[in-house]
Amino acid sequence: MKINGTPFRSIWFEEGEVRIIDQRWLPHELRIVPLRDRADFATAIRDMWVRGAPLIGATAAWGMAVQMAQDPSDASLAETWEVLHETRPTAINLRWALNEMKRHLSPLPAATRAAAAAQRAAEICDEDVEINRRIGLHGLEVIRQIAARKQGRVNILTHCNAGWLATVDWGTATSPIYHAIEDGIDVHVFVDETRPRNQGALLTACEMNWHGVSHDLIVDNAGGHLMQHGEVDMVIVGTDRTTAQGDVCNKIGTYLKALAAKANGVPFYVALPSPTIDWTVRDGVKEIPIEERSPAEVTHVQGKAPDGTVLSVQISPDGTGARNPAFDVTPAALVTGLITERGICAADPAAMAAMFPDLAR
Amino acid sequence: MKINGTPFRSIWFEEGEVRIIDQRWLPHELRIVPLRDRADFATAIRDMWVRGAPLIGATAAWGMAVQMAQDPSDASLAETWEVLHETRPTAINLRWALNEMKRHLSPLPAATRAAAAAQRAAEICDEDVEINRRIGLHGLEVIRQIAARKQGRVNILTHCNAGWLATVDWGTATSPIYHAIEDGIDVHVFVDETRPRNQGALLTACEMNWHGVSHDLIVDNAGGHLMQHGEVDMVIVGTDRTTAQGDVCNKIGTYLKALAAKANGVPFYVALPSPTIDWTVRDGVKEIPIEERSPAEVTHVQGKAPDGTVLSVQISPDGTGARNPAFDVTPAALVTGLITERGICAADPAAMAAMFPDLAR
Repeated sequence: MKINGTPFRSIWFEEGEVRIIDQRWLPHELRIVPLRDRADFATAIRDMWVRGAPLIGATAAWGMAVQMAQDPSDASLAETWEVLHETRPTAINLRWALNEMKRHLSPLPAATRAAAAAQRAAEICDEDVEINRRIGLHGLEVIRQIAARKQGRVNILTHCNAGWLATVDWGTATSPIYHAIEDGIDVHVFVDETRPRNQGALLTACEMNWHGVSHDLIVDNAGGHLMQHGEVDMVIVGTDRTTAQGDVCNKIGTYLKALAAKANGVPFYVALPSPTIDWTVRDGVKEIPIEERSPAEVTHVQGKAPDGTVLSVQISPDGTGARNPAFDVTPAALVTGLITERGICAADPAAMAAMFPDLAR
Repeated sequence: MKINGTPFRSIWFEEGEVRIIDQRWLPHELRIVPLRDRADFATAIRDMWVRGAPLIGATAAWGMAVQMAQDPSDASLAETWEVLHETRPTAINLRWALNEMKRHLSPLPAATRAAAAAQRAAEICDEDVEINRRIGLHGLEVIRQIAARKQGRVNILTHCNAGWLATVDWGTATSPIYHAIEDGIDVHVFVDETRPRNQGALLTACEMNWHGVSHDLIVDNAGGHLMQHGEVDMVIVGTDRTTAQGDVCNKIGTYLKALAAKANGVPFYVALPSPTIDWTVRDGVKEIPIEERSPAEVTHVQGKAPDGTVLSVQISPDGTGARNPAFDVTPAALVTGLITERGICAADPAAMAAMFPDLAR
């Protein structure tokens, strides 16, 4: 999407090198950095210069490609898989991308691996963009219908960052929004701050600003009140993992917004690439273990100080501990529809199996 | 309640002067300051050294008393009413306390006003403490029942600060908690951070720390997940205003917690002194206008920097605006009970009128 008028992706190849946006400094500073060798890629993934499952996968694929240009041997291939995999060992998409590169490159003679790797890495990026574009086109239909039946702008609430900064381009939850803007629909976005890591305030608001999308930041507490007063026409969120019965595991707080949407008759959509559906899990509340992250994420907040430095301040008393569940599960009954690259599907086992007969078990 | 073993109130008379805790520095610093003349009191109220309706009223009463000791004339009485009233002209309790002092002092000869004023100010404080103590005893019964039927600790979630720092002592929502501790019940408190002003993180957590209550800070997003997993046995919140049909206007985000409590069968209680019931309003969602406060409260967060200074950091991009509704309304249907100084009452018009026949219209 655009940064002040110029189209960008979150990772790209230019002038012989792979470049990314070092997202640690957003929204306060736009730092574009080259990743020139395997160590650079490992650092970028491990230290969260890039984040978001699709972008992590794309970065790992490019890391493998850059290494193949320097040493295309079998030993190098195996070692690079290990080095990049251990940067974030629980990231499913990272593992998938590394396996895909290895599967593609292993049978090839070493001399052809560099070119083949670069081509496959670029394809992995393009495939992500295409999936998100399709999600956007299907979601656009929902926004068009709302726009057709109401006067004035369409108000959309989103939680966390399921935007292009988490993917290669378009994003998932934001893709319908960007498509609606291109379609000339008057859209306004309420951006949930998304404590504790503030991905809404830091990243989604940043995307909206760059692309010129009308938006307001709100605290996570405010969405219920806005829905109660008719100020939200639809909610769109992303998901980390969707179960075979349509339960949605996403950033902590998603569930509260889904409850408020249900109580107030506001449609609640989840945008997802179909690979994030976990067909082995049915009851998300019972079966998905929820990661508890560091209490420091709750007791401290990062931001820009009056002198321009970015630092972390402690908001709680010394001695107060914190609980920090990172995700929650929104039961399928609260979900109006799943916006996938194949179309919009009800969040129930039969509808999901009918749309994905090749994937469902 | 206690600060590290020593009993405190939020305002008290000691060694010939009125003292308060300057709450602007909490939780990072405990600053006890004397208020020695009318100007001190006006500053303390206007600049929010003290906050919370009951404490503001008590402070105004003491301000009047201190002024009467310096100049008990009719002119002084009238002027002090004006000076203190204009510090926070929309605060109902401030107005009530000033009117009460004026009503009490006006008929008296000037020579007796100083002593009478000090006595009445002390009584106003004691009356607040007694109301909150009674709320606590009624709420204690609910906690006792939960403790009797479950193994292990009773987990209570609260939002914002309806604690002793907002009243003279005990607090409203916290009073049942402090009484349960005194009763020997094993209680754990989940303290909602309460963005945007973070009164949970700054004040409620501070109270819990000082008094030695087991607690964890959580982000406002986390409560739904905790309730879904049986980790919350009850919710207790305060209220700014309760309608004649039991709708509860309280700090933004209260409504989302009430929805989650209802969805998960968790009792949701509201603690309130009966004077905060507004018998002139029925439908809180339709009739209560919600104040929108400064966007800067959303885009900035205050905390303690690594070097120990307390400062405000910007979490959002330059150019991103914010919506900041300060309160929301929780419909009566989501409220399990109103804990008042007279007892616990269902949040419906008939039950409320039956408990308060002298007040209901």
